[in-house]
Amino acid sequence: MKIQNYRDVKGNRPVPGVVMRVVAGPDEGAPTFVMRVFEIETGSGTLHHAHDWEHEMFVMEGQGVLKSGNTERPLREGDAITVLSGEQHGVMNTGKGMLRVICVVPLVDGVMPGMKVGD
Amino acid sequence: MKIQNYRDVKGNRPVPGVVMRVVAGPDEGAPTFVMRVFEIETGSGTLHHAHDWEHEMFVMEGQGVLKSGNTERPLREGDAITVLSGEQHGVMNTGKGMLRVICVVPLVDGVMPGMKVGD
Repeated sequence: MKIQNYRDVKGNRPVPGVVMRVVAGPDEGAPTFVMRVFEIETGSGTLHHAHDWEHEMFVMEGQGVLKSGNTERPLREGDAITVLSGEQHGVMNTGKGMLRVICVVPLVDGVMPGMKVGD
Repeated sequence: MKIQNYRDVKGNRPVPGVVMRVVAGPDEGAPTFVMRVFEIETGSGTLHHAHDWEHEMFVMEGQGVLKSGNTERPLREGDAITVLSGEQHGVMNTGKGMLRVICVVPLVDGVMPGMKVGD
């Protein structure tokens, strides 16, 4: 059992303007899925991409849009998002403050999967 | 792909003083895990229990404690919690406002698993 505040977890920058922190997952012994916290600066966003596994996301704070192909849908605090295998998606911060999103993905062979851009 | 605000999802009461809303999971087509939002009233808590699957939790708002056996550890906003298979746990609201916690569990045979109290 482990408790850690996400602010105390060292992050990395998968793309400019985005910090990802892995807060619960295989390093804590979890065998099935991994929870990450993304902090997305105003005007920045995650890559528009698709992959073979699902996402379950939750908007903790901020405003943005979920892009999928040519569509954009608004996001606000408290929104839960299910993205299934193969569905194009990207999250953009269109608000004035930080956009904070929890994103859970399944482990593949016990590790956090990567992503193929533009699939 | 589905977006729904957790406040718009009908909840149920697994125990008095606790509302659970299933916000992303098999009803949305997700095959691996399910995300729930728990709202725990002041002085209330989830049952102290253990089970064969892991939890990954995130404290959205409020203050509380994570009980495990005879120990209690404080919880605050932004805490991520990993509970592994077989570990006793229960979340209590010891603050003055609502305690809101995201809790993700794996699906078992494609459905959200139940729990065995007191295991």
